[in-house]
Amino acid sequence: MAKPTIKPSLPRGTRDFLPEQMLRRQYVMDVIERVYRKYSFEPLQTPTMEKLSVLGGKYGDEGEQLIFKILKRRTALERVGQPGGPEAVTVTDFADVADLALRYDLTVPLARVVAMYQHELTLPFKRFQIQPVWRADRPQKGRYREFYQCDADVVGTNSMLADAELLAIMNEVLTTLGFPQFTIRLNNRKILTGLVEYAGATPDLATSIIVAIDKLDKIGLSGVENELQERGVSAGGIARILNVLALEGSNTSLVEQIRDLLSVSETGRQGIEETQEVLTYADHLGIPEANLRFDLTLARGLSYYTGPIFETVVESPNVGSLTGGGRYNQLIGMFLGRDIPATGTSFGIERIIDVLTELDMLPVAKTSTAALVTTFNADTQAASIRLVSALREAGVNTELYFKAKDGIGKQLKYADRKGIRFAIIAGPDELAQGQATVKDLHTGDQVVLAHDALASHIRQQRQG
Amino acid sequence: MAKPTIKPSLPRGTRDFLPEQMLRRQYVMDVIERVYRKYSFEPLQTPTMEKLSVLGGKYGDEGEQLIFKILKRRTALERVGQPGGPEAVTVTDFADVADLALRYDLTVPLARVVAMYQHELTLPFKRFQIQPVWRADRPQKGRYREFYQCDADVVGTNSMLADAELLAIMNEVLTTLGFPQFTIRLNNRKILTGLVEYAGATPDLATSIIVAIDKLDKIGLSGVENELQERGVSAGGIARILNVLALEGSNTSLVEQIRDLLSVSETGRQGIEETQEVLTYADHLGIPEANLRFDLTLARGLSYYTGPIFETVVESPNVGSLTGGGRYNQLIGMFLGRDIPATGTSFGIERIIDVLTELDMLPVAKTSTAALVTTFNADTQAASIRLVSALREAGVNTELYFKAKDGIGKQLKYADRKGIRFAIIAGPDELAQGQATVKDLHTGDQVVLAHDALASHIRQQRQG
Repeated sequence: MAKPTIKPSLPRGTRDFLPEQMLRRQYVMDVIERVYRKYSFEPLQTPTMEKLSVLGGKYGDEGEQLIFKILKRRTALERVGQPGGPEAVTVTDFADVADLALRYDLTVPLARVVAMYQHELTLPFKRFQIQPVWRADRPQKGRYREFYQCDADVVGTNSMLADAELLAIMNEVLTTLGFPQFTIRLNNRKILTGLVEYAGATPDLATSIIVAIDKLDKIGLSGVENELQERGVSAGGIARILNVLALEGSNTSLVEQIRDLLSVSETGRQGIEETQEVLTYADHLGIPEANLRFDLTLARGLSYYTGPIFETVVESPNVGSLTGGGRYNQLIGMFLGRDIPATGTSFGIERIIDVLTELDMLPVAKTSTAALVTTFNADTQAASIRLVSALREAGVNTELYFKAKDGIGKQLKYADRKGIRFAIIAGPDELAQGQATVKDLHTGDQVVLAHDALASHIRQQRQG
Repeated sequence: MAKPTIKPSLPRGTRDFLPEQMLRRQYVMDVIERVYRKYSFEPLQTPTMEKLSVLGGKYGDEGEQLIFKILKRRTALERVGQPGGPEAVTVTDFADVADLALRYDLTVPLARVVAMYQHELTLPFKRFQIQPVWRADRPQKGRYREFYQCDADVVGTNSMLADAELLAIMNEVLTTLGFPQFTIRLNNRKILTGLVEYAGATPDLATSIIVAIDKLDKIGLSGVENELQERGVSAGGIARILNVLALEGSNTSLVEQIRDLLSVSETGRQGIEETQEVLTYADHLGIPEANLRFDLTLARGLSYYTGPIFETVVESPNVGSLTGGGRYNQLIGMFLGRDIPATGTSFGIERIIDVLTELDMLPVAKTSTAALVTTFNADTQAASIRLVSALREAGVNTELYFKAKDGIGKQLKYADRKGIRFAIIAGPDELAQGQATVKDLHTGDQVVLAHDALASHIRQQRQG
């Protein structure tokens, strides 16, 4: 074999997932997927590549720069400077360079799917999608160029039940993942619009006001006050806004207080009614009141939200926001030229995996292999192979040690290094009696059992 | 909302997978993954993008042309002809154009992983990898530009047990998928080399002879004879080769017959011993003899195989070869400059899915949602929501019908259109008695049950 010419490495911001990491990732994704399915969401997958004409103009100038573009095939450019290719190629039109791009998010593909299959899909279409996306962002801790998104969206209904179910999903996923304390924050874009009207501000100030409120967590009430002043909101208007942001009380009490204040605004009243509805449904769906907070200070920056908005904050351990979403009735019809109501949520799955790994909160072994069957010597090898087959037949993930010549000590060390918990040892005497020793490498315990009792013993011990 | 400017479509050779297709795909992938794990293979995932320096020179000129290359970010080329960008860009070096590419197979990434993590991995490293790859091939029926590969490889052992386990995996997967009759064909590259020596042909004719044998299925014995003549194999040599190809008998009998004939060749003798070993292990592993055929006419074109080679042919239904693989001891160390023994198999998963779908052999419903809870009217909506929660709590994937105003008939039609099997109907009278009607939309049967008996009834019916 020739000497290697290069030292292999990974593209910046991408990762290999070795088995131990894969098991952690699959555990988290399985939890989320199982909950999505329980709530009658169904799987969708779209291609890694989309046409540039589909993605173009959807993510703003900044987003557009982060899209990975794919070179056209069989062009002169592909062979420039190569043996047999042209010495130079002059390009005047980017359309001659690239035609495809890597998926940037899961929302534009969903909009494309809704447009292309509008006559096949039965609405409401409840889909989840767990696939990687790619962004040529500067990589840093926790930020990758290839990362999974994990979205659930309901397309084609205005019912607040859809939004409430998303809250129930967040509640169930975070509970199942073992976070002992978290809060689902709920607000409504229409309430924020109502607040702008209540403050007597002109509609052109709406975005500035929402952006200022969105920073409350970071800059505090006085920071928001300063920013509103700078943006030209009147002193009276600022007083009214701060007054609302300072409201306290239970969800029910907050709804009542804000209902009175915003009664001047038709949009605000709608937002209150929607919130009332979502809270009622959330209660029927069994979300504990302690986990759900109607929070007037939640703004969520993205301009496309049109109704309920929500995110979760995990307080214990203190890791911040792990999910976010809201209703966006004017986006998903982008390829059809008409509004299609939609609401959705997304789990920050890479962050969830990083956090749960760092805090050692994942009930996942180092390997999915439960047992290693050792081989005493060449004469007993056939019997060991048959033991392996029987265990696999009984559903136990089992490895066979390949080298009959290695001593049992070496074989046990191998199991330990791989993180395999149970070792099966069967010498000639045990085999003659139809028995084998099971050694638990975690505890050191060992027990001699009949061959047909091995599988159930291992299953029992693993559950215990 | 603005009128759409484009009619969205998919890149050539790529596919969306809507829920019904996803369920079929996931079923097949789950079967294979479960078997891989039972045989102690562990999951690996590598990034979608690899450096061009890693992929370059690995796939031959033809393969290289099929690689999707990714444009470098933040270059003048990316803005050529765009507002604010240069009017023209002249390129003289391809290295200025692209630096990354989409994964072309799962073998080069495995070799990269083995090189980069050589001190972390415990050998033998048994990994499976189920991920898409991309090839800019001309799309046609059954051939896609984005398609999944589904590989299992054992790296770091010369033991024939590794090869035998791969045969057992093929046997178990195809049996589990419900193919009533198939044959695993087994041969060994060393036997083919021995055959060349036995024929008295010079080593430079070896590839020609193997290529000719590889075509036996298509061109028959006389076709192989013609081709061997054209390649310049002597008449005596051709007679010997055809003599071997015509051998018949049980696996054991074939081994004995060929052992005598090839005794002149040291390599041939090794191949026979390896085959004898694999057949013995396969028997211990419980592969039925009827499913495994030592087949001297199996050649498999790829030049990198060094030992056992194998593939499966499904005879009933008659769909041809669905898996292939073999031992390739000189490939996986490509980045280390030393040989690392390896053997592997791959399921043609896209073809398997297409075949099982066409033949309607997949035990998969149209949806993973088992039940739809209807809503009688606005007054009973809260009770319906609570029923939904209880069913989900009991692990039943359940949808809630959102519109309380729609009649029950419309709601049942919705369930039917979505392929949901069970509809739960609860009017005021039933609710007052803590009961609900479960209607099986497949059979038309319906039964009135207490609320806490709904989940177990549905589970029972689905298993029955």
